[in-house]
Amino acid sequence: MGRGVITLITDFGTRDGYAGIIKGVILKINPQVRLVDITHEVSPQDIFEAGFILKNSYRYFPNMSIHLVVVDPGVGSRRRAILVETDNHFFIGPDNGVFTFIYEFERIKKIIELTNKRYFLPYISNTFHGRDIFAPAAAYLSKGTSLEDLGEICDDVVRFDIPRPETERGIIKGVVLHVDRFGNLISNIPEVLFRELVGKGRYEISIGGEVLEDIKGSYSEVKEGQALAVFGSSGYLEISVRGQNAREKLKLNKGNEVKVVYK
Amino acid sequence: MGRGVITLITDFGTRDGYAGIIKGVILKINPQVRLVDITHEVSPQDIFEAGFILKNSYRYFPNMSIHLVVVDPGVGSRRRAILVETDNHFFIGPDNGVFTFIYEFERIKKIIELTNKRYFLPYISNTFHGRDIFAPAAAYLSKGTSLEDLGEICDDVVRFDIPRPETERGIIKGVVLHVDRFGNLISNIPEVLFRELVGKGRYEISIGGEVLEDIKGSYSEVKEGQALAVFGSSGYLEISVRGQNAREKLKLNKGNEVKVVYK
Amino acid sequence: MGRGVITLITDFGTRDGYAGIIKGVILKINPQVRLVDITHEVSPQDIFEAGFILKNSYRYFPNMSIHLVVVDPGVGSRRRAILVETDNHFFIGPDNGVFTFIYEFERIKKIIELTNKRYFLPYISNTFHGRDIFAPAAAYLSKGTSLEDLGEICDDVVRFDIPRPETERGIIKGVVLHVDRFGNLISNIPEVLFRELVGKGRYEISIGGEVLEDIKGSYSEVKEGQALAVFGSSGYLEISVRGQNAREKLKLNKGNEVKVVYK
Repeated sequence: MGRGVITLITDFGTRDGYAGIIKGVILKINPQVRLVDITHEVSPQDIFEAGFILKNSYRYFPNMSIHLVVVDPGVGSRRRAILVETDNHFFIGPDNGVFTFIYEFERIKKIIELTNKRYFLPYISNTFHGRDIFAPAAAYLSKGTSLEDLGEICDDVVRFDIPRPETERGIIKGVVLHVDRFGNLISNIPEVLFRELVGKGRYEISIGGEVLEDIKGSYSEVKEGQALAVFGSSGYLEISVRGQNAREKLKLNKGNEVKVVYK
Repeated sequence: MGRGVITLITDFGTRDGYAGIIKGVILKINPQVRLVDITHEVSPQDIFEAGFILKNSYRYFPNMSIHLVVVDPGVGSRRRAILVETDNHFFIGPDNGVFTFIYEFERIKKIIELTNKRYFLPYISNTFHGRDIFAPAAAYLSKGTSLEDLGEICDDVVRFDIPRPETERGIIKGVVLHVDRFGNLISNIPEVLFRELVGKGRYEISIGGEVLEDIKGSYSEVKEGQALAVFGSSGYLEISVRGQNAREKLKLNKGNEVKVVYK
Repeated sequence: MGRGVITLITDFGTRDGYAGIIKGVILKINPQVRLVDITHEVSPQDIFEAGFILKNSYRYFPNMSIHLVVVDPGVGSRRRAILVETDNHFFIGPDNGVFTFIYEFERIKKIIELTNKRYFLPYISNTFHGRDIFAPAAAYLSKGTSLEDLGEICDDVVRFDIPRPETERGIIKGVVLHVDRFGNLISNIPEVLFRELVGKGRYEISIGGEVLEDIKGSYSEVKEGQALAVFGSSGYLEISVRGQNAREKLKLNKGNEVKVVYK
């Protein structure tokens, strides 16, 4: 289907119609394109959270999908508007670090700064470049406009520091990166790292006051209301409470340490 | 349009991108299918609520629609993944009772346990079968894959008890099944049952401390802030407060008794 | 694309499946039409808010789009169901004032009262005309049904009073009309009015206890946590706090006065 899908990640919420306006702008330029909401509920101006959700979702979309990410606290300043091309996907948004995980996990073919005003809306506001610059760029790209037409090659981009787990002999120290709707506490400890270091040996996982002595295969292996560790759907160690909200039950949150001690 | 529509009912919320991921998986398999959100705001793991919303909505969709329902507290356990075919619709989800109202109201043509791994994603997580099993099944079904290819016939399925109104001479005792966004208290007393038993006689409806002496034709028949009974849009007796939230105003909720006494 | 897009503005929320039902009804009649949510989170029964969001969004959609607005406290009463045709758009909803801004800003070609029951659902509830009357009307219109088939010309419609800024020598007095998800306080003072009256002279903007001495070009011109005035994306004067929620930080809300004093 060529560049037939545009996905949306924003912090616009769903109350004010801002996400709808973006879709209107896109459909006016390319009435054929498929629009898919990933989320509009990123915490206001939380660039890391947007990047994290993007990381977990983009690879499930068809090749040549265009991922539009508008979490843009610097709107109206000199921060650049960019388009990133990787082997299989396109990413459009502000150059504020929101694509850090993409730079980490994908081969970057080209980065373009969106400078060609011919592909902007005629009037550019100071506060809503999602509507005036990013949405039209995504729409024209989906119609086949070439990257070089949309702007100029650029090679230095903004990244945030990815919080990586620290390892020393017998210890992996991670941190809770995200808490989802169910209250699951998603850490930055990848399943592959865990398996490589811990192997088949004994281990203990501690978070807050909880100590968990093994990783379960599914929620149903513990009783209702009991805490457990699992490898979550995005490949990281998660702490959950069966049938309940772990954030509320354990009084833990984003930023809390998760420690694995192994023999 | 054949099997051209897939609807979605989940408890994923809209913050974390889980519903978006499901759509990506589906579009990668069938880029042509129409995706329609019914809701992603089912209370976490509330199977009854999901079944209730499904009951009220599925029949308004085109024939041959595929209704994907992912409220799945038993994910990763031995609960089965099933596909239910009725005269005009398909239903895909966990076998945990979420289709109870469908078994009640529709003629069941076939139930398939989704066992054919050729139609799963290559890697199956322990916590997100919506993405790994249910979404691909819906997508392949929408493309025309036969039911028999997707798995094996199964004939016993899980049901929950539907809370039915109790009737004795001169009394109908029901219960509030659902409270909607507006605070309307939706009971399990069907309009048809009411009309059959009460006919044109006198009656009184009581709920909490409120006593209502007739059923109104519309909200506008009472004053702002006044409680009233109506037959709601899904065919059940509802208690509302004009222009306000009945749950808050009357301090009532899901599970409260609704009693009709008639002569 | 002809009448190929239907947008939706409602106060249904996204929990109960009501918006999904509306989409089902539409797709059953016209499986080809594009459906775009503008918002389902209008405050319950807030006609002004729905009208305000409509005003800010409709013009970004393709010509011949059909805008379905269902915020309908008078459902089931004698309030009319109408279809408004302007030069480039169609609007369908209850005749309760929700289209007031459209009457103000667009040339009205025709207003039709939806009276032809052939285009309603077979059974009309007392509480959900969005499903039973408005959705089918939008769907048939999108398929090419003529306006005259759907009902009868009507010429008097309900309007609400648009709160306009008051001006006297050296003063513009406005009011906060809407507070968005970010807490931005959006006033009713248009950029064009401001520029016409204030020109290049000095001025002061006061709201609550805050006094702002100029209008910034972007959020980044002030420090994190500082209040500022900007011309927002819909062309009105807005009060914001950089990186924070102005409603919470300044303890201000819808209805607060915004005063410009100029020399």
